[in-house]
Amino acid sequence: MLCGTSANENAIKTAFIWYQAQRRGGLGPDALHLESCMNQQKPGTPNLSVMGFEGAFHGRSLCMLSVTRSKPIHKVDIPAFDWPIAKFPRYKYPLDQNVAYNKKQDQECLADVEAKISEWKRRDNDVAAIIVEPIQAEGGDHYGSPAFFQGLRDITSKHGIVFIVDEVQTGGGATGDIWAHDHWNLSSPPDMVTFSKKLLTGGYFYGEHLRVKEAYRIYNTWMGDPTKLLLLEKAVEVIKRDGLIEQSREVGAEFQKRLGELQASSGGKLDQARGRGTFAAVDFPSGSLRDKFVDLAISNGLHCGGCGDRSLRFRPSLVYTKKHLDLTFDLLDKTLKGL
Amino acid sequence: MLCGTSANENAIKTAFIWYQAQRRGGLGPDALHLESCMNQQKPGTPNLSVMGFEGAFHGRSLCMLSVTRSKPIHKVDIPAFDWPIAKFPRYKYPLDQNVAYNKKQDQECLADVEAKISEWKRRDNDVAAIIVEPIQAEGGDHYGSPAFFQGLRDITSKHGIVFIVDEVQTGGGATGDIWAHDHWNLSSPPDMVTFSKKLLTGGYFYGEHLRVKEAYRIYNTWMGDPTKLLLLEKAVEVIKRDGLIEQSREVGAEFQKRLGELQASSGGKLDQARGRGTFAAVDFPSGSLRDKFVDLAISNGLHCGGCGDRSLRFRPSLVYTKKHLDLTFDLLDKTLKGL
Repeated sequence: MLCGTSANENAIKTAFIWYQAQRRGGLGPDALHLESCMNQQKPGTPNLSVMGFEGAFHGRSLCMLSVTRSKPIHKVDIPAFDWPIAKFPRYKYPLDQNVAYNKKQDQECLADVEAKISEWKRRDNDVAAIIVEPIQAEGGDHYGSPAFFQGLRDITSKHGIVFIVDEVQTGGGATGDIWAHDHWNLSSPPDMVTFSKKLLTGGYFYGEHLRVKEAYRIYNTWMGDPTKLLLLEKAVEVIKRDGLIEQSREVGAEFQKRLGELQASSGGKLDQARGRGTFAAVDFPSGSLRDKFVDLAISNGLHCGGCGDRSLRFRPSLVYTKKHLDLTFDLLDKTLKGL
Repeated sequence: MLCGTSANENAIKTAFIWYQAQRRGGLGPDALHLESCMNQQKPGTPNLSVMGFEGAFHGRSLCMLSVTRSKPIHKVDIPAFDWPIAKFPRYKYPLDQNVAYNKKQDQECLADVEAKISEWKRRDNDVAAIIVEPIQAEGGDHYGSPAFFQGLRDITSKHGIVFIVDEVQTGGGATGDIWAHDHWNLSSPPDMVTFSKKLLTGGYFYGEHLRVKEAYRIYNTWMGDPTKLLLLEKAVEVIKRDGLIEQSREVGAEFQKRLGELQASSGGKLDQARGRGTFAAVDFPSGSLRDKFVDLAISNGLHCGGCGDRSLRFRPSLVYTKKHLDLTFDLLDKTLKGL
């Protein structure tokens, strides 16, 4: 595929194709299905939905916008599929001081997922797939716990729903593993994982049961770009040679610690410090203060950016070391004092 | 954009954005629109549709599949938007012997377009854009007349509908002009033209009135690929230097003439010879005979392919000359005799 959006689009198409084959006892489309789809009638054109989450971002095509809920400017004026959106956990930090609250978040969100699966089934619009980010990035750096994702895996397995993990932002090593879902210790792997960005091309991998049997159902003119694969091969070689994932894990742990300390010394200006590896974020009391901070940080020489309503997010590259970390926190400290 | 499908997706998004701005008296989205779209409620998430045509192909994303009607295997098992599909002319050839019949085709198809615009308006699902190929390629090489497209331009202007011409297959010179719509002599240009394939990257151009004012509404991570533009610049340079469009026009006229002669001498095996420039097609009595012909032609050394149910299509590249044409028709003749 060419990009993260097209990876997600085709992953979802693959899920629909599998879901309909299951309804036919594992068979491909028959004459009735092939005829009726040309008039967009059932059974060839089914009512099927994909579940997304509040705060999610999966791309800007019409299909992906229907499961995207990060910012209004992406969605406004564009028609959408009537697909369910479930709650995604909103934890309190630090995690070790908010265990009971956060556990309840997981339970409430998983209950919402179950309720909406039932509701859409009653509306004859079965949920064929659930798509979820390990870390809701565009939507404000919201992190899901391993327990939440284990719950999602169990629910999707129980209902025969395809579990798609969108690792377009998280895939590639910056969370301290090549895939963020490696941290979850799932009972069985996700059915599909989509990727792009750091992996230089777009694509997805999937369980063998999802392989589409008929030709031309998942297809595009260029079928990716071989030159991007050459670049990716070299990038992976360097990641291994220089131990960049291990480095990202170590420097990431230090980053999280220092961000917590910065928050503690910020006199209430910073809150909810959080992260995984070198993925990290912290909240300001308001969006306007966050924006001021970002402007000042950039003029001080620190490249950083906002996400969500009032979060500041950090996305160091894989070559980020302790030396860069010291510089980062000097500049954060200076910026905070100048605010 | 990265490909033809993403060009079409974003052209359609641009059309929706414009259509909704017109409803607001030219203004961008207000607070009510921005809030309601996050719950996919009106007015922020409108009911709006795009009209496509029977036999059309515009890509394989969920949005584009909703206006695609070329082959069941593309559409089956995939949910779709409830968007109108109008009739596209099915002419008899040769054109100069079927003037009255073909004129009636144009009239019937344009009446169908008008009727379905009204029907979808009554269903509170206004047609915001019409997307059409100059030559329905995947669907069986169906050519629309200049009069048909002039009619479409007039209808879309009258109703305030965005007129999108999908030149993903036809753009680049092989029809005897850089754009196939250059042949139509329209009262005013199409509102948007999308392209890809021969133009090496994906994109679209549009009337100034359609320019989106707000940031981040039409956007993707990579915003195309600059290396593809370097290749395209060189390709355009060679097209001009070697007069390849003029050549394509001349050799195309000869191609059409020879294809008519081949049909006349085929003893009824070939029918409906048609084309524009070096875009050309001819029909067989059945799909199975067409498939046999294609296999035999390839084994004879002629690279060609089928389209639609029983058509054979020709897509010579821009460097195709009289010498290649003689060779083509020798091989076609040999294949036909061996069938």
